[in-house]
Amino acid sequence: MKFIITSRDGATRARAGTLELYHGAVGTPFFMPVATAGAVKALALRDLDELGYEMVLANTYHLYLRPGTEVLNAVGGLHGFMNYGRPVLTDSGGFQVFSLADLCTVRDNGVEFRSHIDGSKHLFTPERVISIQGAIGSDVMMVLDQCTGYPASEEESRAAMNKTLDWARRSIRHYRESVDGERQALFGIVQGGVFPDQRRECASALVEMDFPGYAVGGLSVGEPKELYREITSLTAPLLPEDRPRYMMGVGSPREILHAVAEGIDMFDCVMPTRIARNGTLYTSRGRISIKAAAWEKDFSPLDEECPCYVCRSFSKSYLRHLYRAGEIVALVYNTHHNLAFMKRFMDDIRSGIISGTFRDVRAKWESVFPPDADAPA
Amino acid sequence: MKFIITSRDGATRARAGTLELYHGAVGTPFFMPVATAGAVKALALRDLDELGYEMVLANTYHLYLRPGTEVLNAVGGLHGFMNYGRPVLTDSGGFQVFSLADLCTVRDNGVEFRSHIDGSKHLFTPERVISIQGAIGSDVMMVLDQCTGYPASEEESRAAMNKTLDWARRSIRHYRESVDGERQALFGIVQGGVFPDQRRECASALVEMDFPGYAVGGLSVGEPKELYREITSLTAPLLPEDRPRYMMGVGSPREILHAVAEGIDMFDCVMPTRIARNGTLYTSRGRISIKAAAWEKDFSPLDEECPCYVCRSFSKSYLRHLYRAGEIVALVYNTHHNLAFMKRFMDDIRSGIISGTFRDVRAKWESVFPPDADAPA
Repeated sequence: MKFIITSRDGATRARAGTLELYHGAVGTPFFMPVATAGAVKALALRDLDELGYEMVLANTYHLYLRPGTEVLNAVGGLHGFMNYGRPVLTDSGGFQVFSLADLCTVRDNGVEFRSHIDGSKHLFTPERVISIQGAIGSDVMMVLDQCTGYPASEEESRAAMNKTLDWARRSIRHYRESVDGERQALFGIVQGGVFPDQRRECASALVEMDFPGYAVGGLSVGEPKELYREITSLTAPLLPEDRPRYMMGVGSPREILHAVAEGIDMFDCVMPTRIARNGTLYTSRGRISIKAAAWEKDFSPLDEECPCYVCRSFSKSYLRHLYRAGEIVALVYNTHHNLAFMKRFMDDIRSGIISGTFRDVRAKWESVFPPDADAPA
Repeated sequence: MKFIITSRDGATRARAGTLELYHGAVGTPFFMPVATAGAVKALALRDLDELGYEMVLANTYHLYLRPGTEVLNAVGGLHGFMNYGRPVLTDSGGFQVFSLADLCTVRDNGVEFRSHIDGSKHLFTPERVISIQGAIGSDVMMVLDQCTGYPASEEESRAAMNKTLDWARRSIRHYRESVDGERQALFGIVQGGVFPDQRRECASALVEMDFPGYAVGGLSVGEPKELYREITSLTAPLLPEDRPRYMMGVGSPREILHAVAEGIDMFDCVMPTRIARNGTLYTSRGRISIKAAAWEKDFSPLDEECPCYVCRSFSKSYLRHLYRAGEIVALVYNTHHNLAFMKRFMDDIRSGIISGTFRDVRAKWESVFPPDADAPA
């Protein structure tokens, strides 16, 4: 893995560059669509390429349960299984174990849980999670971490952070012993909840372990937006300038703009695809609901400025009709458009940093997506 | 509308040719994917073109209820609404009124029903159904008919046939008075259930009315396959040799082969798309269930002989995984493949007729899809 920063914004910590991974290079900052079980929900694989995406995220927890490592080993990894030639990042599965699995119990050596699919019992240890990601063959793997929800007490948060650090140490050791670092990079994850001291302590300990890259975890789990921003602004600069920084599970256009300005390079979020399936679409003029009666006879495109297949081909009236009629292809078209939007949005940010106009780009998009102070991050 | 027969099979009544409609020419015999509400379920519009389809069927009942004629009139018809440039056939809505609507009551002047969506009350008269299809702008419109289910008594069937003939007379009169015949053709529909005399009487009366084309209706409604075949074989030759013949709602590869041999030119059916969404796929070696455990580690394509995007890109193992994981894109891929199969299948039949090898083509496909005598048609 090679990370090259080629441009820096003068007024903020924003930077643009290239992340070179085993399956190819990706321009930073970038957004990864989420391909949970080896497919982006409601999007054909070739559409992902057409939209220009250079990297996706897949979920270790889901792929471990189904199709399982036996199938993945038989086919030589996720790339072959899903016929995808570009870089893939896998999370550690920790977040899903805590949020989706039944009866999850944290032990010293790892986390025990029951599958949400069939109730079967499993144990994720830091080492095991590295091995599973080895079978997946992701370009970037993540350490097993423990994320608290929001709110969590200072003690709960500290205990989870200590566990995270202990597991990170075991992870990087196992990684160095057993993984080909040329093919797969391992990122550490900063936890510490909404407590500045814990974030500092966690970041500092992880940096000492010298990971190829670092992620900010445990945010966007229900905390108020202001607190989210404060912790992002505090944590990002604690991470080495020359390593890629990844903000996990974020997010909305506005939060991405803020995080980029703090020096974050990588994002993933289910939001653009999830809200698409619920009929909410991003446009150059803000979010719209495709269900609105206002579109009944509006035969103009969803977004006049969007060059995607859906905006080139269909009207708001037609898309509203498909959604109301419960057509599966409504989910396909909505997802296609929202991911087209996100790619253009990220490209706009990146160009802004490179051309020295990040301030204008940010101001433009912040006016399109005004603050919604009460909403959680 | 112009119908030109260019080839005839020596041993059967099969024929191949071209049906020229307002929005373009279609090679016969052909299969129309069903775009119920203005979209083929789970298929992007551009995929329909990529697969080579030249015509689709849309449902008058569904489009009348949603988006409604007001929206269709505002946008100038279905072609503009769904951005489709090729020919469209619309059914009369009669079949859906009888099978989907609540509280449907047949009156002399038409059929009264309540919407299955919101319970609102509506009346379809033969004239009204022509006007609605005028607003839709379909290349081929169908007369309002009354279809009995199976079984139905001889008296019930006769009453429905008489009603169908009465409505057909009113339909062709209204059509000649109010519709531009260059843009929209009107087809009559032969009813008469499983009673040969009624089929003969109905066909003969319709032929006297001199419709641009004729359909065989009221089949594939639950009757045994043998009865279905008998009535098809009886009815098709009763229709004028120089007019297109359309077998409504059929069907399976085997039934299509039989009907083509009896001189049918046009087909539509929800089966290929519906079974796709249930995980059943057509291949060059027969029907398979993508859910089968046998495919767990089968990394070969669905169908080695199929050149479609799905077969070029993905394995049975991966498609099985997507289906089991409940991924929306599994429905998209399965639908894409089954419609790719149907297009190749129809092309194969057409080439067979043209090149004088229809007998071999038929024998080949009949061995791939062996009889399932107990199943209804």
